[in-house]
This record gives sequence, C-alpha cells and structure tokens, in this order.
Amino acid sequence: MMINKVVQACNFIIFGAKGDLARRKLLPSLYQLEKMCYIHPNTRIIGIGRAEWDSISYIRVVKESLENFLNEKIDPHLWKKLSNRLDFFNLDIYDLNKFNLLAKYLEGDSKPTIYYFAISSTTFSAVCHGLGHAGLNKKNNRIVMEKPLGSDLASFKEINDVVAKYFKESQIYRIDHYLGKETVLNLLSLRFANALFINNWDYRIIDHVQITVAEEVGIEGRWSYFDQTGQLRDMVQNHLLQILTIIAMSPPNDLTADRIRDEKVKILRSLRRIDYSNINEKTVRGQYISGFIQGKKVAGYLAEEGANKFSKTETFVAIRVDIDNWRWTGVPFYLRTGKRLKAKYSEVVIYFKNISLNIFSDFIQTLPQNKLTIRLQFNAGIDLEILNKAPGVEHKHHLQKTKLNLSFSEINKKIYLDDAYERLLLEIMKGIQALFVRRDEIEEAWKWVDSIMEAWAKDNEPLKTYQAGTLGPIASDLMIIKDGRSWNDF
Amino acid sequence: MMINKVVQACNFIIFGAKGDLARRKLLPSLYQLEKMCYIHPNTRIIGIGRAEWDSISYIRVVKESLENFLNEKIDPHLWKKLSNRLDFFNLDIYDLNKFNLLAKYLEGDSKPTIYYFAISSTTFSAVCHGLGHAGLNKKNNRIVMEKPLGSDLASFKEINDVVAKYFKESQIYRIDHYLGKETVLNLLSLRFANALFINNWDYRIIDHVQITVAEEVGIEGRWSYFDQTGQLRDMVQNHLLQILTIIAMSPPNDLTADRIRDEKVKILRSLRRIDYSNINEKTVRGQYISGFIQGKKVAGYLAEEGANKFSKTETFVAIRVDIDNWRWTGVPFYLRTGKRLKAKYSEVVIYFKNISLNIFSDFIQTLPQNKLTIRLQFNAGIDLEILNKAPGVEHKHHLQKTKLNLSFSEINKKIYLDDAYERLLLEIMKGIQALFVRRDEIEEAWKWVDSIMEAWAKDNEPLKTYQAGTLGPIASDLMIIKDGRSWNDF
Repeated sequence: MMINKVVQACNFIIFGAKGDLARRKLLPSLYQLEKMCYIHPNTRIIGIGRAEWDSISYIRVVKESLENFLNEKIDPHLWKKLSNRLDFFNLDIYDLNKFNLLAKYLEGDSKPTIYYFAISSTTFSAVCHGLGHAGLNKKNNRIVMEKPLGSDLASFKEINDVVAKYFKESQIYRIDHYLGKETVLNLLSLRFANALFINNWDYRIIDHVQITVAEEVGIEGRWSYFDQTGQLRDMVQNHLLQILTIIAMSPPNDLTADRIRDEKVKILRSLRRIDYSNINEKTVRGQYISGFIQGKKVAGYLAEEGANKFSKTETFVAIRVDIDNWRWTGVPFYLRTGKRLKAKYSEVVIYFKNISLNIFSDFIQTLPQNKLTIRLQFNAGIDLEILNKAPGVEHKHHLQKTKLNLSFSEINKKIYLDDAYERLLLEIMKGIQALFVRRDEIEEAWKWVDSIMEAWAKDNEPLKTYQAGTLGPIASDLMIIKDGRSWNDF
Repeated sequence: MMINKVVQACNFIIFGAKGDLARRKLLPSLYQLEKMCYIHPNTRIIGIGRAEWDSISYIRVVKESLENFLNEKIDPHLWKKLSNRLDFFNLDIYDLNKFNLLAKYLEGDSKPTIYYFAISSTTFSAVCHGLGHAGLNKKNNRIVMEKPLGSDLASFKEINDVVAKYFKESQIYRIDHYLGKETVLNLLSLRFANALFINNWDYRIIDHVQITVAEEVGIEGRWSYFDQTGQLRDMVQNHLLQILTIIAMSPPNDLTADRIRDEKVKILRSLRRIDYSNINEKTVRGQYISGFIQGKKVAGYLAEEGANKFSKTETFVAIRVDIDNWRWTGVPFYLRTGKRLKAKYSEVVIYFKNISLNIFSDFIQTLPQNKLTIRLQFNAGIDLEILNKAPGVEHKHHLQKTKLNLSFSEINKKIYLDDAYERLLLEIMKGIQALFVRRDEIEEAWKWVDSIMEAWAKDNEPLKTYQAGTLGPIASDLMIIKDGRSWNDF
C-alpha cells in the first residue's frame, strides 16, 4: 500500500444514501479513491436513510450504482475492500432518538466524522438539530453541503444560520463542483506561477474578459426544479461567479483556504450592482425554442416534458460585469451561459488591449488584439493568439493571426483525468477547505444576483428566444457589439 | 499576368556572372521571381565577366546553373521568359574603355540599373571607378554588395570610402542574407504587432536572452578563407549581431528603412566594449576536434583538407553581450555560434524574470522561468514555456513545464517558403533598403568586434577544443553557469 498517499481515517456518512447524487457521483468517486489508495484502511462509509435496510442490502444498492455509473468494470478486489467499509444506518431525521442511537453507534470511535448532506436543503435544519442534540457536532467533525443552498440571500442565510448554530465555518464544506475541476484548479497555477501572466493581469494591458459556460443539454427531466431556478441562479450565481473570482482575484499571499477566499470575496464585493436602471443594458435573458443539436431536432423549453407553457424562466443569460477595484477599472467581464447551445464547452478568454501605435497601418488598419483562451471544458488547454507575418516573398508586413497552442490531453495522454468529485471528497477527508466556498462568498454572490432577479421581475422586457443549437439570442451579440467587441466564436 | 505584383523594370547586371554566388543563389532566385511574376516584362538580366562569351553561351551557363542548383524541374515556358531577358557583356574591370562600351550598350535606356557585385571586395574599387568614369552611377542606379566587406573597421571603411565616391548611401544595398529570412523578418511583426510582447520587452520582466546559430557543416573546402576569418567575423559580426539588434531595438516610429536602421544602430552603439580586461570572462573561443555528426565520423578542424596544423582560428564563439541602454540594463544577451555542432539550428530564447513571490514553495523551491523560444531555422516557429498544474486527483499544486507551441510550417503548409535571396533581390528591384545594412551599422559592429579580436590576439589563453557533434566547448557552459544560468538545450 502506498501509505504516503493515504489521508486520515474518518467515518464518511452520507445523508441521502440512495439518492441521485450519492449514486451518480459520490459512490463512483469513492470507488476511484479506493483504487488510487487514497482512503485510509480504517475509514468507514455509512449510508443513512429511512429505509429498513441493513448493511447487506445497502451494499447491494452501492454495487448497483457502481454498475450503472462507473465508467469501467468493477474490480473484484477493490470492490471487496470498498464493500468492507460499507454500512447502513436507519434514521428518520425528525426523530431525535434516532440521532441518539447514531451517537451510540459511533461511540468510542475517535475518528472525525464527515456528514455529507446529499439531501434537500429544506431538511438541513432537522439534521443539524438532531446531530447537535446527540452531541455529534464535535470539533473534528465536518459537514458537506451541496447546492442549491437557498434561492436568494435571505433563504441562504436562513439555512446557514441554522447550520451555524451547530457547526463552525471551519467545519463546513460548501460544494461548488467547478472548484474541483482540474482545469479550474489550474487557473491558480497559471495565474500565479508565471511571470508573463502575473505581470500582465490588470487594466493596463487587458481590454476585457469573456467567460462562457455553454451546455448542450436541455432540462433533462427536471423541468419544474429548473423553472423555479433559472439559468442565472443555476449557473451564474455559483459556477460562473466562481470562475470570475479566480480570474479576477489579486494574488493571495499563500495558498491556504482563507487567504484564497479572502481575495475571492473582495472581488465579489467589488461587483458593480446591476439594477432596474441598467438591467437591459447589462443583461440579456433568453429561452430556447426548438432547433437542432448535432443534426437532431430537439424541443423548445416550453415544449419540454412537464412544461408550463407560460414560463418566463431564462435558460440563457449574458451579463456585462464591471468590477470596481483598482485592478479592473474599465475592464468588463462578459459572462454567458445557456442550455441547448451548439456545444458543451467552457472557456475563459482574456483579450489584451490594442497596442499604442500601429506601425503596420499600411497593411492592416486595426491590429487584432492578442487573446489568451483558457479552455476549461472540451479539448481542455490554452492558446495564445498573436500576430505573425504572413509568409510570402514580399517584404510586406501582411499579418496573420496565429495560435500558440497547448492541449492538456496531448501532453498528459496517459494520466487519469479525474472527476471533480474525487478531488473534493479527498479534500474533505483531508480537512482542507480551499476548494470550498465560504459563507461570505456566497452571500456576496447572492446580493449581486438578487439585485438582477429583482430588476428582471420589475422589468417588462420580454424574454429573448433563441433556437436550440445556436449561441443564444441575437440580443446577446448586440449587448457586446454595442461596446465595440464581439463574442469569441467556438 | 498579375500586374499588381510586378515591380518596376530594371537592368539587373551581375558582376561575377559565372561565380559561385551567381550560380547557386542569384540565378535560381531570379528564376523563382520569374515564376511568381515578380519581374517586370522589360527587365533585362546581364551577366558581366571577362570571358569571351556572347548571350548564347551565357544562356547555356545559366541553364546549367539552374539544372544544378534549382530544387525543381525547369519549366520550359518560364525558362523561355527568363532566357529572353539574358545577355552577356564582356568587360575587364581594369579597362576603362570597356566601361564606356557598357555605357554605350545601356545608352538610351532610362531604366534604373542594378549592379550586383558578386565579386571579391578587392575589386569593388576598380568597378566603381569604371562605372563612375563612364557615368554609370546615375542617381537611380543601385549597387549591391555581398559580404565579406573587409575584415575589420579599417578595411571596411576603405572599401566603403571608395564606393562612396561614386554612390550615395541611398544607392547602396549591403546584403546580410539573414535579413531576408522569413523568420528573421517576422521578428518585427512578432515584436511590434503584439501587445503582449511590446509591453514585456525590457529589463523589468526579461532576465536574459540567448541567441544560438548552430551550424552542422564544417569548413566545406574553403579552409584558407575561413582560417583567416574565424567564426567571430564570419558569423557574429554580421548575422548574430543583426539578430541581436532586431531583438533589442526600441520600436521604430514606422517601418521605413532609416527609422528601423536608426534604432538598430543605437543598439550597436550601446554594446558594452569587451577588451583585454574582461575577454576571458565574456568570451569563449573554441575549435572542433574530430567527432561524430549523425553517427558519421568527421575530421577535426586541423585535419581538414588544406589545413595548417597550427591554426588558432576559432570555429566556435560564445559571448556575453551587455547592452548599456535604458531598456536592457542588467539583461545579458548570450550569443553562441559554431561549426560542426550537433545540428543545424538557430533560435532566440527570451527568459523572463522569476516572479516576485513563490506561493508554490511547498511544492517547488524555485519556479522555472517563463521562456519564449523563437525558432529561426529548423522547425521554424515559436513556443512559450509556462507552468501549469500537473494533473492529479490531489489538490496539491505540483507544477509542470508545458509549452504553448506554434509551428510555422504546420499553419502555412501549402505556402511556398521562399529563400532569403528571392526576397532581397525583389527588394533591390523595388528600391527599398529596409532589409539591407547601413554603413554606420556595420561600422559600429566592426568597432565592437575589433576590440574582441585585439583582446584575443593579446591574450595567451589557449583555444578550447570541442568534439564535433556536440554543443561546443565546456567553457561555453561554464561561462553562462557562472551567471547562474544555462544554455537552452536543443
């Protein structure tokens, strides 16, 4: 066994043991961590639910999940190791006595216990109360919370206020799985380990930034959930704002959780408020109508299964974000994200300012800007678009756009490209909070998002439609074109 | 015919019509220009020599040259066009009467005449005198001079003083064929069309620069010429210093010849003098001994055909160059060039400074520097070495060096990659001097080189030997290692 890799032993308790998240993400990730020898021999994995199961029947459920959601054949040796850790504990979260029984079940075990809340946030209150009642909120225990954590600042605070009665911030791990992605994590290395980037990352040389998270999928059977949420809260409030903060943050003095999160929250506090006065200038809401994805006809949002035909929920958002701090004054960050777009693709594009004097003006009136593209998802990698002389026997300085390219999959051909959840579970087991979102970050994000939601509610502007399989409504292009810029094509 | 490409008509007169340069370079290049429709229909090409030839016999010589030195089959249609332009004029350069006859031969022809001196510089004086005598140095005529133009400042001045009696600087085209290379010419576009480079090109962010011009060939039957010259004068005084000036120059206000050359000469004037006091600290001279090139044994310099066994001529030079101006203070430029090195390869490597704070110090004590490599010859292109996170499920910020790469041959697959001479001949026909070297540039280069030659002559340090097929003498590595740096491996 590669003992150096092993993290400390713990009890890993999953509330919502047979739920979607557990089956699709948590259990397959635990299997992968087992395979990589990252789980301590004494670690136990305990499912919790109301079912009258015993460990045998839960082991069966777990195996089934792996068979369905693991992208590889189950190795019998690994399965034996993993299944030996498994147990199931029957618990009704509204029955305090059951929590006492859970305490008894864990009695004499000094290992830290991790409570993974893979359940609706409406039940967090009851669970925390129960854990607190039974004294299961000891200092070395941790809780993990999955989004959605409320639907606005008020509801987020409500949830977190209850949790905070029983757990300190240092015990709380709020998941945004984007922070576990290899390519998102790499943004820190890219930004802070390279002189060429650290010295060229502010308003003096950067013109603007674009962040795109395009989804190809539609609503996937969760229409009513999504319809109450919308793309702004489903994607921007968490993932896109997290990417934005990592791109925009000032360099932290070290890589510890709170030094990084301090810098991130400073960015969130500097986001210029969008409200009713500028909502149509700064945002575009779209909703997809039927169209074609990879040559296949797909339904519009209002024709999806379970749809309310009068819904005004946005499935696409484009926003111009201004950051009012010293580093980014005058440098807009344009965000766009939508469902049923032409491809699944995420990128950050840094556009550098035009150079001060164009000595090539005889050949090209406006020099195209240098452009750094960081591909987060799909063909992950980096490219830097620069100008070179177009070849030709003449001396003439005709210029051509050319790309310096780096493809991560090419250089790392043989290395297992892990899933975000594996990394995040490992971090939780290690007790490192850097990849999790602090309460004040999310509160600041909600403040900013709430203001947009309110302005939209007040605003009469109809939703813009876009055909499925495109890059969103034309209004999204117009929003950026009026600033003399255009979206990066992908 | 693509009339827009055609330059003005001229008489293109080659002194040394059957010499090596004419046969290997000029005539094949004229053929290529013909093929690309760059030669005006009325342009004539006239060989000049002492042979009792007529145009018929010269045409035969030209055809033979093309058959030997053109890398493709001669197209009969093109050959017909080209051969129709050809003529031969018998002339003894010491016979003034012959120049009068040449004047008569050209009488009534108002086209500019280009005199290409593909002859030894010892004869320039006689030719210029003859041309002047016969009134053939009219304002719109041009002369082209090939290196070597002297062997030090004094002899260079002597040659140029004579020429200057008959021709103005604006009529004189001094060839350094490196300036005609696509990749060298691209340095201007790369440096001055890209915000990311123009804003990051000085002592504040660049640590040092390396310029390598490695030759695989040895002396190739010109031992006695080379032995009197040496690598410093054969390669550094012209090619390497030209590359250095283009990399180091401040941005010119426009792309006209004199604005570019003004900036170049400012760099040459700022080169810190190397003399007897610091010659061994700043330079390394090497001479190859036998070794292996691509698995084949090759002779040492002193065992080459025609060699004087006691020669102390250098076949390798490494120099630390300091530029005393505001832009480059504290940024050394390391040059190295040699014969019989392990490969034919030229590159410029820009090493960026270390970043001010290493927040990754738990994982890597010293962050490798960012590095921009511009490959001028062999696999021409550009790469930028940066650091990215090494992939892995752990959050740990292990970093790996990765390259953003651009290969010119890949992006320009189908475009004819021309020879430097074609471009230079075309520029001469157009009357544009930007790619030719001005007198003051070469004078400054000689001043600096002369001082090194004098110091070497005075110095008793024996020549360092190096095995053919390596990267030069160990002393070359030591020279740069003592500055805490190392040569880029290729």
